[in-house]
Amino acid sequence: MRYPNGRQKRSSLTQSNRKAPIRYGNRGMTLEEDINETNDFYLATNKAVIHKKPTPVQIVKVDYPSRSAAVIKEAYFKQPSTTDYNGVYNGKYIDFEAKETSNKTSFPLNNIHEHQIYHMKQVTAQQGLSFLIIRFTYHNETYFFPAERLFFHWQQKENGGRKSISYENVKEEGILIPIQYQARVDYLSAMNQYFV
Amino acid sequence: MRYPNGRQKRSSLTQSNRKAPIRYGNRGMTLEEDINETNDFYLATNKAVIHKKPTPVQIVKVDYPSRSAAVIKEAYFKQPSTTDYNGVYNGKYIDFEAKETSNKTSFPLNNIHEHQIYHMKQVTAQQGLSFLIIRFTYHNETYFFPAERLFFHWQQKENGGRKSISYENVKEEGILIPIQYQARVDYLSAMNQYFV
Repeated sequence: MRYPNGRQKRSSLTQSNRKAPIRYGNRGMTLEEDINETNDFYLATNKAVIHKKPTPVQIVKVDYPSRSAAVIKEAYFKQPSTTDYNGVYNGKYIDFEAKETSNKTSFPLNNIHEHQIYHMKQVTAQQGLSFLIIRFTYHNETYFFPAERLFFHWQQKENGGRKSISYENVKEEGILIPIQYQARVDYLSAMNQYFV
Repeated sequence: MRYPNGRQKRSSLTQSNRKAPIRYGNRGMTLEEDINETNDFYLATNKAVIHKKPTPVQIVKVDYPSRSAAVIKEAYFKQPSTTDYNGVYNGKYIDFEAKETSNKTSFPLNNIHEHQIYHMKQVTAQQGLSFLIIRFTYHNETYFFPAERLFFHWQQKENGGRKSISYENVKEEGILIPIQYQARVDYLSAMNQYFV
């Protein structure tokens, strides 16, 4: 609603700003940003070497202008065949996928691709440590969720069961990761609780 | 030399074809192709889960034509901050870079970036298994070369020493990987010889 002088009514402006959830805990950072910061902290403190893999891109056309860098002029996003993050912690192979959902009551399984499940099963068979990091943005909670439990719920879905993991199940079968100032999403601590 | 009828002299044609090295062993495949095939074989036989990372690309402009896939219209190659390959073998973290050189007498160290050395040192500190795979295309030989020896030669270079690793040193400090029909570049066998 606008007044004749063209200014918006202040209270309605404030109201509309309030629609955005107030996220004291994480300063509005995305899960990816939080994990990248955590990985930087792990690297700087020699705790672990874990990186996000580059986005896979199918490059079709490249220009090579003289005296300057090659320019990719046509390329397409490819579906990742693995998870987004991997690395090493104390000699052990770590492999995970991170997803946030705005859903209040469940984590929809269509956030994960079938070939990612396949990849995580292969990693688990090789004794690698595999898991999901799930953030419920509505609850502002982030969970470590072990691959074995993901496989269970995926199988339920394949057998005609529900297409999501309920929020309650994530709470019960996963481990809440407290948001901290440094190592903002300290997933390795949660992982150690689970795998020990 | 051409005859008046326009056909090339057969013997000179044969001669010129011979200039290309005859590579019975690897059917003219690049080192990257050989390693990808080897990784596929490791995956299919449940021996290891090792993938090449996607080429890192800085995406600047993306078009979203209606009803079809997003098209990347402007992007640039970024320098990789890690190595090209990593994964898990028997619970252990594996991390390596693969390079071929046409140099007959040495492996030039400018094939490796400083931040890759830094990454490999971090991996080694985390007890990950890190190494190079070096192919001398002239000799048609492929070597496993441990990160520790690479660090040594890199340090020599930093101290004003030679800017390459001599072919003799690669032979002595590395392990020759035999080219096979399956698992064409069976680097895990060479790695096991070294790390046991």
